[in-house]
Amino acid sequence: MPDYFIGIDLGGTNIKMGIFDENVKLLNSISSPTNAQEGPDVIINRMAEMSRQICAENDIEYASLKAIGVGAPGPSNIAEGIVVAAPNLPKFRNVPIKQMIKDRTRKVCVFENDANAACYGEYVVGAGRGADNMVFLTLGTGIGGGIITNGHIIHGFMDNAAELGHIIIEMDGRLCGCGQRGCVEAYASATSTVKRAVEALQAGRQSSLMEIYKQKGTVTAKDIYTESAKGDALALEITEGTAKALGILCVSLLHVTGPRRILFAGGMIAAGDALLGRIRHYYNKYLWPLKPEQMEICFATLGESAGMIGAAALACEFGNGSCL
Amino acid sequence: MPDYFIGIDLGGTNIKMGIFDENVKLLNSISSPTNAQEGPDVIINRMAEMSRQICAENDIEYASLKAIGVGAPGPSNIAEGIVVAAPNLPKFRNVPIKQMIKDRTRKVCVFENDANAACYGEYVVGAGRGADNMVFLTLGTGIGGGIITNGHIIHGFMDNAAELGHIIIEMDGRLCGCGQRGCVEAYASATSTVKRAVEALQAGRQSSLMEIYKQKGTVTAKDIYTESAKGDALALEITEGTAKALGILCVSLLHVTGPRRILFAGGMIAAGDALLGRIRHYYNKYLWPLKPEQMEICFATLGESAGMIGAAALACEFGNGSCL
Repeated sequence: MPDYFIGIDLGGTNIKMGIFDENVKLLNSISSPTNAQEGPDVIINRMAEMSRQICAENDIEYASLKAIGVGAPGPSNIAEGIVVAAPNLPKFRNVPIKQMIKDRTRKVCVFENDANAACYGEYVVGAGRGADNMVFLTLGTGIGGGIITNGHIIHGFMDNAAELGHIIIEMDGRLCGCGQRGCVEAYASATSTVKRAVEALQAGRQSSLMEIYKQKGTVTAKDIYTESAKGDALALEITEGTAKALGILCVSLLHVTGPRRILFAGGMIAAGDALLGRIRHYYNKYLWPLKPEQMEICFATLGESAGMIGAAALACEFGNGSCL
Repeated sequence: MPDYFIGIDLGGTNIKMGIFDENVKLLNSISSPTNAQEGPDVIINRMAEMSRQICAENDIEYASLKAIGVGAPGPSNIAEGIVVAAPNLPKFRNVPIKQMIKDRTRKVCVFENDANAACYGEYVVGAGRGADNMVFLTLGTGIGGGIITNGHIIHGFMDNAAELGHIIIEMDGRLCGCGQRGCVEAYASATSTVKRAVEALQAGRQSSLMEIYKQKGTVTAKDIYTESAKGDALALEITEGTAKALGILCVSLLHVTGPRRILFAGGMIAAGDALLGRIRHYYNKYLWPLKPEQMEICFATLGESAGMIGAAALACEFGNGSCL
């Protein structure tokens, strides 16, 4: 009887669940609104029900389900399996989610934060495959990520590792939402890319973005990349600023954990080669000429499923009963 | 019969060797000039002779010597135990030092680069004790270091990890010896601290350092800290610049590997609290106010013995025959 594993991505909007075989191959997935206001008890009960449901719907005996992996947002205590707080799940305060899932499903549960889970998913079956040392970065409202060294996610003391958006790339630079100055996130997240453009427009810079800004009251990262592609000087300057900040970040990351590969994920990678090519350009420009480096910079490939897949991969890897 | 271990720090000037018990307690040490021009064969033969000598002199049967750890400079292939190149050992090009020591001593040999060995020494018996996640930084001609996560040295792909002096803290900032711009090393190494002072003096800045500069044609980091303590404005500005760069580095390192402790080592820590207190000041100033952080910033305590001790600690930890 083959073994099966479940991966869950608990988000503020949806619970995404997949059932996987022993090779972390996705067999099927289901989704349900989180209804965050219902609080942890109801939501975790629903996750347990969904686990039984996904097995039944796929003709998998519940006994063959070996472990459940769950990725959840927010500051958390990974070893204890506790969601400490989560901006998108306001009723989750110090919720022992790992134990609660175990109690309700009678299965081994493996817990990880969502960014680390996505990182692990990319490592096991995505663009990070084979890169035992890698860094994963998501470009969204903020910049988050995860780090793999020697095939393992690094957590750091008090799970402090991999707050990668808050690496400082400019002394006394732009103010970041976190309160620090000069964080890479203050330059290169989707939000900061937009903010830099809006600031320039408000300062009266000529740009084809101005029309959009006047109509909508703002611009999107997509607008900026579209106008940049058409040759608008301001839009180009903004997208170059984003790529430069990320290129410099890659140089610094190379020198800290020595990754073989850095993967970018998140909504902004829709910009495609216009982003990736320029990140590589600035990485090469700012990197030392001392010796050739073989680090690769790529896009992630699992999209929004990365967290769910990574949670399943963790269940596969660590759900052997030792963490019961 | 208790087991014994040898730790060797192979430097460009001296070979330092210690004999240790199973608890990494130093029993005795000897030293010999490296005579780098003699090349790897002669030098490694001498290391083997010294191993027999140190056992004999301390009434330790050679059979009780279980393993030898060696730390060596330069780019190296850690897993294979090869010194690829070493500026201070110009005849060491692709030298399979681990195998050569094993052949000449008939003992298990564990190899590590010198900065990682010193890092591990501090972790096992120095100021890093108990900090399973830590970062070690040496402030000298350059800035080097090592990183421990989950109790293990991280090496990265192609042993690229922990080139910590080349983390970029300022976009398009000062030119570093490595060819990059804005590296922390370009601000805060002993050499760069001196360089920033000399630049200011050459630009005609008033300072009590000017007298020293005119006499000696240069100033030392020690001069700068001495004059800074006496209240000289330029000297103070320079030492503050060093501390600020290191404080910002600590913020970034916290956000990458999440260390519990960051240790500073190297000649410049002779500046004492005038340096450490200010690094902590700038770390706290530039750190986010989002949540309290418990990371500690301290000085290393093993001084120039750290590498030798760390090499012995690695021999103790990994010299169980599995790497023969």
